[in-house]
Amino acid sequence: MIRFAQKEDMSSALRLIQELADFENEPDAVVVTENDLIRDGFGPNSIFHCLVAEDEGKVVGMALFYPRYSTWKGPTFHLEDLIVTQSQRGKGFGKDLYTAFIAYAAEKQVKRIEWVVLDWNTHAMDFYKRSGAAVLDDWKTVQMDEQAIAAYVKASH
Amino acid sequence: MIRFAQKEDMSSALRLIQELADFENEPDAVVVTENDLIRDGFGPNSIFHCLVAEDEGKVVGMALFYPRYSTWKGPTFHLEDLIVTQSQRGKGFGKDLYTAFIAYAAEKQVKRIEWVVLDWNTHAMDFYKRSGAAVLDDWKTVQMDEQAIAAYVKASH
Repeated sequence: MIRFAQKEDMSSALRLIQELADFENEPDAVVVTENDLIRDGFGPNSIFHCLVAEDEGKVVGMALFYPRYSTWKGPTFHLEDLIVTQSQRGKGFGKDLYTAFIAYAAEKQVKRIEWVVLDWNTHAMDFYKRSGAAVLDDWKTVQMDEQAIAAYVKASH
Repeated sequence: MIRFAQKEDMSSALRLIQELADFENEPDAVVVTENDLIRDGFGPNSIFHCLVAEDEGKVVGMALFYPRYSTWKGPTFHLEDLIVTQSQRGKGFGKDLYTAFIAYAAEKQVKRIEWVVLDWNTHAMDFYKRSGAAVLDDWKTVQMDEQAIAAYVKASH
């Protein structure tokens, strides 16, 4: 069963987020807390939406997304995380979450959906392409973290 | 002078957006209208923020950004467009917009700022790296447009 997450699901969501970080060999990268997820995902100022896959009363996966904006096309959605817990993979939960996310995007009439994929993950890329998505080869992501932001601001004074 | 955009600036913003589309050889890609930008950039449900560079009373550049969310770090900003009109390049407006955006990100205490760059644009990448940003080589952008979303939803029924 796929449904929108409630506040009570955020401990499960954090467990999935940590599981993904462990899998990507970045076990210490998660600084977000359950309370942060509750603050940022619910209420009038919520920043993200979250769908969860539930099996026998337990959350086994989630799709977390939020609005973005294309200055060419208009409102879009960004799929930040699509995670299924290791022991429950291969049972269709990931596909169901993906489909529910896309159906919601269609319902909201966004102009595009978008996400990123690691370039060695050919299995995922093939799946995305088969579903009608395009993998863009000519764009690179650029990031400046909190420390670099502070250093830049200090240097620019 | 750098300041936050007002509704009245959206005709200038659209001109800059179209100029960038022309530059990227996609002159017909812009379907957003001035009214869309006003609807999406202002009021209680605004999706994006926009800084403009003004010179002698005219808008010569803009930095358009919006909130995103890292499930590891928390709230972040995404810089969607940083545009300076062709005739006014090389005068420091781009740097001023970039600095104002980063200062605002610091003020809002976001955990990260992020954007994308075309992989042949080494000049821009060098500038970003010198400013303290990291260019990620291992992530690819995936997009599904409106038509593909509709086709996927239809096929999944």
